[in-house]
Amino acid sequence: MRDAYVIGAGQSAFGSFPEETYLTLFDSAFDRTLDSVDGELSPDQIEEAYIGTLGVGGRQIGLSGPAVTEHIGLHGIPTTRVENACASSGYAFRQAVAAVRSGMVDVALAGGYEVMNDTSADQTKWWLGVSGQTEWERTSGTTFSGVYAQMASAHMEEYGTTIEDLSRAAVKNHANGAQNPKAHLGFECTLDDALNAPTVADPLNLYHCCPTTDGASAVLVASEDVARDVSDTLVRVVGAGASSDSVGLFQRDSLTSIPASVRAGEDAYEQANVEPKDLDFAEVHDCFAIAELLAYEDLGFCDRGEAGRLLREGVTDPDGALPTNTSGGLKSKGHPIGATGTGQIVEAFEQFQGTANVQVDEPNYGLTHNVGGSGGGVTVHLFERVGSAA
Amino acid sequence: MRDAYVIGAGQSAFGSFPEETYLTLFDSAFDRTLDSVDGELSPDQIEEAYIGTLGVGGRQIGLSGPAVTEHIGLHGIPTTRVENACASSGYAFRQAVAAVRSGMVDVALAGGYEVMNDTSADQTKWWLGVSGQTEWERTSGTTFSGVYAQMASAHMEEYGTTIEDLSRAAVKNHANGAQNPKAHLGFECTLDDALNAPTVADPLNLYHCCPTTDGASAVLVASEDVARDVSDTLVRVVGAGASSDSVGLFQRDSLTSIPASVRAGEDAYEQANVEPKDLDFAEVHDCFAIAELLAYEDLGFCDRGEAGRLLREGVTDPDGALPTNTSGGLKSKGHPIGATGTGQIVEAFEQFQGTANVQVDEPNYGLTHNVGGSGGGVTVHLFERVGSAA
Repeated sequence: MRDAYVIGAGQSAFGSFPEETYLTLFDSAFDRTLDSVDGELSPDQIEEAYIGTLGVGGRQIGLSGPAVTEHIGLHGIPTTRVENACASSGYAFRQAVAAVRSGMVDVALAGGYEVMNDTSADQTKWWLGVSGQTEWERTSGTTFSGVYAQMASAHMEEYGTTIEDLSRAAVKNHANGAQNPKAHLGFECTLDDALNAPTVADPLNLYHCCPTTDGASAVLVASEDVARDVSDTLVRVVGAGASSDSVGLFQRDSLTSIPASVRAGEDAYEQANVEPKDLDFAEVHDCFAIAELLAYEDLGFCDRGEAGRLLREGVTDPDGALPTNTSGGLKSKGHPIGATGTGQIVEAFEQFQGTANVQVDEPNYGLTHNVGGSGGGVTVHLFERVGSAA
Repeated sequence: MRDAYVIGAGQSAFGSFPEETYLTLFDSAFDRTLDSVDGELSPDQIEEAYIGTLGVGGRQIGLSGPAVTEHIGLHGIPTTRVENACASSGYAFRQAVAAVRSGMVDVALAGGYEVMNDTSADQTKWWLGVSGQTEWERTSGTTFSGVYAQMASAHMEEYGTTIEDLSRAAVKNHANGAQNPKAHLGFECTLDDALNAPTVADPLNLYHCCPTTDGASAVLVASEDVARDVSDTLVRVVGAGASSDSVGLFQRDSLTSIPASVRAGEDAYEQANVEPKDLDFAEVHDCFAIAELLAYEDLGFCDRGEAGRLLREGVTDPDGALPTNTSGGLKSKGHPIGATGTGQIVEAFEQFQGTANVQVDEPNYGLTHNVGGSGGGVTVHLFERVGSAA
């Protein structure tokens, strides 16, 4: 099996952009992706594309992938829309890696987008709900924040996790996002702010929930030959883990873990022959604050019930042992559903290039973790900087 | 690049099944797929899945792929929903081929489904419309039959194609489908029937349009090692062509060709080192009668404007030089959107196994052609029987 490399990655600004469309947002992400390549890559070299989107709202639904590639000047290349809810572009990236590893193509584009602010709040809530289980969650009135609130309650009861622990994830991510000019909510918040915000779904308050965001992101995946040709810094995909699970939370044995994260992480670590202690940074899926805590435990950053301690001790702060969500995470950078998975890889690529807004000192290994729904589908990718190209 | 093989393929009955759900339909397709494997394959050997669906209606929309794999007993495997309108499972199959060729997995499942008869006719029409271009087709009132009616009118004007030519495609496909116990409209029709049916979108009448169908289909793709282990007849994927295009018909230079079909076909033929004259059978995308005629020309079965002649001369009849749509095609077998692409491969697999309802004599090469929307995304796959396993 030949290796796949990330040779470029970029995102649009994340935010609320009533004047933009999914096409203009993707265009912006794609331009920055091409600009991020160290050397010269012609768009003509891109042979296949995978576009992730949940497809919120009433715009192009069927065949939106080809609509995107045509708009960005890649007319005619095989283009697949991938939909795995909030993990849509994590899976799009996985397909791009497979396409390059297979030898079918030398350069593939993975990306994603979502436009969430041009529909009514009711419509957006409906679309978010479709990532939950239909019969016994969405159509029974359970909101998406309600699903994660159940996980938070269970974690608090089982492990003594506190509202302060949840709030510290928000404070950290906002501090990071305040350095990111492309973040949706690029401002700092205090622990007091994050403790005293209005309740959304008890025990989660406004600062424990990510915003409703418009945006797009893209990543270029290439063979080693192409990567050596165009890259000063070689970023190899050393682990591509993924797993699915029951879509409904009520169908699972435990509310205090996302089993698909555990399995995807174990697969990725094994493929890469890497352990959590080897990681220099991570971008994890913090759609709600509790999700970041679950990720720490599911991905082996700490033992069960210890996630709150990691936050209290600053282990995942930028100057800690494992800086996590240096981009600002979904909480501060924003969560344009389909754009989130490849958006995390944008941050990873910038960390390796040394151009991140909150830069980690010369990282060798990084992890990205993208969760669909409440854990019905997860991807975990591991990246290694393999030194400079000759 | 290592080779990928089809080791099993099966479909549910296609039809109108108010008592079935997408899960029960897929279950039926998957059972038949496992049964179709010559030797023993344990479901545990299936490592990844790609599920194509447009997602018509209001049931599980986000993460429907994982919901399917959980239901059929493949809990936890990486599962991706692929959506490229009517080419959703053609592309799902393409990803499964890439996954096996990459070496990431040895056995992958590709499949698709659609449930179209449990929503109102208005809702179904809306969902079909989403495969057209949004701003200038769907929301301006152009129906999907209207889009293909424009292609039919243009072909009639440019090449003198007649209503009789279109109707002959329906007569042939119904004759084939009448032999297929899983066909939705498994009855014969006369040329007179097909000429005198009520108009749907002038010049297309009821017999020039496929039905609104519920159904599911699935295909197992495997490495050569696994294929040699479980298959008596080895069916190799020798060409995997795909291409995208403008989603809107009005954005293209010509109405009398689907350029993505031309490009996907050329790619597949070149990869396989096969020419149209080498083919022993084909399953082409006849969502409307004109689509079958366009396919003949776009895939090089004949020159431009000659498709009507092929039908008149019986070239694509079961006893002709290139039997086409022996399954009954979308017209008679039915067109459950997401199930169609892999449904065509079910027919191809049965032809190679010698178990087809309308059997071609010992075929060596077969082609499947799956079109999304009016040609915004197309896959063309070429299969070769490479003799019996040792």
